[in-house]
Amino acid sequence: MAVYTDVSLDALNHFLSDYDIGTARSFKGIAEGVENSNYFLETTDIRAILTLYEKRINADDLPYYLSIMAHLAAKGLPAPLPIKDKAGKALKTLMNRPACVISFLSGVSTDTPSTRQCYRVGKALAEMHQALADFDQNKPNDFSTTNWQSMIMATQDDCSNSHHQNMHRELVQEMAYLEGNWPEDNQLPVGTIHGDLFPDNVLFTGDSVSGLIDFYFACTDTLAYDLAIMITAWCFDSRQNFMAAHASALARGYGEIRPLTDTEKSMMTILCRGACLRFTLTRLVDWFIDVDGAVVKKKNPEDFFKRLQFFQSVQEDILWQNPS
Amino acid sequence: MAVYTDVSLDALNHFLSDYDIGTARSFKGIAEGVENSNYFLETTDIRAILTLYEKRINADDLPYYLSIMAHLAAKGLPAPLPIKDKAGKALKTLMNRPACVISFLSGVSTDTPSTRQCYRVGKALAEMHQALADFDQNKPNDFSTTNWQSMIMATQDDCSNSHHQNMHRELVQEMAYLEGNWPEDNQLPVGTIHGDLFPDNVLFTGDSVSGLIDFYFACTDTLAYDLAIMITAWCFDSRQNFMAAHASALARGYGEIRPLTDTEKSMMTILCRGACLRFTLTRLVDWFIDVDGAVVKKKNPEDFFKRLQFFQSVQEDILWQNPS
Repeated sequence: MAVYTDVSLDALNHFLSDYDIGTARSFKGIAEGVENSNYFLETTDIRAILTLYEKRINADDLPYYLSIMAHLAAKGLPAPLPIKDKAGKALKTLMNRPACVISFLSGVSTDTPSTRQCYRVGKALAEMHQALADFDQNKPNDFSTTNWQSMIMATQDDCSNSHHQNMHRELVQEMAYLEGNWPEDNQLPVGTIHGDLFPDNVLFTGDSVSGLIDFYFACTDTLAYDLAIMITAWCFDSRQNFMAAHASALARGYGEIRPLTDTEKSMMTILCRGACLRFTLTRLVDWFIDVDGAVVKKKNPEDFFKRLQFFQSVQEDILWQNPS
Repeated sequence: MAVYTDVSLDALNHFLSDYDIGTARSFKGIAEGVENSNYFLETTDIRAILTLYEKRINADDLPYYLSIMAHLAAKGLPAPLPIKDKAGKALKTLMNRPACVISFLSGVSTDTPSTRQCYRVGKALAEMHQALADFDQNKPNDFSTTNWQSMIMATQDDCSNSHHQNMHRELVQEMAYLEGNWPEDNQLPVGTIHGDLFPDNVLFTGDSVSGLIDFYFACTDTLAYDLAIMITAWCFDSRQNFMAAHASALARGYGEIRPLTDTEKSMMTILCRGACLRFTLTRLVDWFIDVDGAVVKKKNPEDFFKRLQFFQSVQEDILWQNPS
């Protein structure tokens, strides 16, 4: 939540001269994103976000992320459009970093979504999956089952010396359980997923979804896992109590666009447990590791651990009841 | 350079319901200002900055600062206008902090101003001084001669244990010199000064000044001292070399609106030395002191110490030569 790289006006003006989007009228660093430096940029012609990609992101993957955004925006979905320079390039260099100008999307994110907003964002997720059905690039998920083991290992020593000791032990057990019960390759429909569609990555205008942003965890994976991530991220209150009506609305919205198969439904609790394990582990890694120069607001790993415990305790069909 | 206080959408909507400015369309924390939390806010009606004042600012002084902005904006000067709620209040409370919505000003700041921009901003400073001539509130300068001693004392021990030891000794001597040579009360014209008009507090559209911002160091003091602050802040390159043409342009622009008296001119070098001492000392204080919860990008105190050494070495009339 910071700007890591300062961009001088001279550097900005030089950079903008490659484009056909006018000259800068406003330029302000925005306190958003933990991986990159983001600027609000208004030119005489457009409003945009200028992003400089910092070292936490793999530069080789940037063309993939930008292609997804361009693919969605071209189909009219509310994704930011990477803007090309006069030579047709969207991925550029600024201050020795990969950089991109993307279109500005209006709307505000909420940390207390309503059930109606959950319904709408569920639809938006399914529309995104459908729009990406003909997207032909692939990328493995860097935060899926095969990577959990290394995160478990990386946090072992720190946890054994902290109050996270018991939690870590339970995560090891959970990982063993999930490795035995996780869907086989292609057992469930696979496609391009967002991978991180938390409330802060969705913009609303009223109840309408006006923006899906931050595609930097997108990858090829089980589509239903993307919905599971959303259920774990959108459907718990601040005391980590499950909000059944929110989950039901989210799943109903999704299903109206892309009906889930019975197998997907029956495995949803497993997928939610996997999502909870993934976010507990990445937050645990961030908790103990200081990234040089990064001003990361650390998130408590215990929130998602409590959500994991909820999904460990429930019947499979809890998501498919209608609490109305 | 951060947002210290998160504002939820619920809290924002509740807050905005006090106003007659429509509903939120965009809301993003901006990485600007080291004292406060700032948000870019676009509603259905207006564009604004929402500021939450954090603990580094004295809340009792806020009505004074907001009055200055309102006074200037009412006279058509490019200062942000504090926006009043339906009850006529501009200073409000949000997230248990004093808060204010102020109008958004277009323009970009530059860290490499041209001489033309110096000329324009010199004029803008004098226009601001004139517009504030009938402003009837007063506030002492918290960073003037009487406060230098306490900053010298506060940094004594830390400096004696660091490579700043020699610098600190010279600052003590400089303070003694300035106390003997500083203008007497009312020896020079006094009024309301900005007190911190660095390049990052001025917005330009091309070469035109479109915004004077950040009035949170404003106070009642010697008018020419405000110009001296600008000479020290705008007229040195990144290697701390004095840029005579910049200073000349700045002083010429100022003088075209409010001609300086001969006494003001003759004391300008002293005032510049005072400005250099003031910013060396405040940066030195920040260098050693960690403010709880604040993410302050520390500025090297030696930059202004080198500028001080320049003004110690020059003839009084260096600012009034025209290097053309």
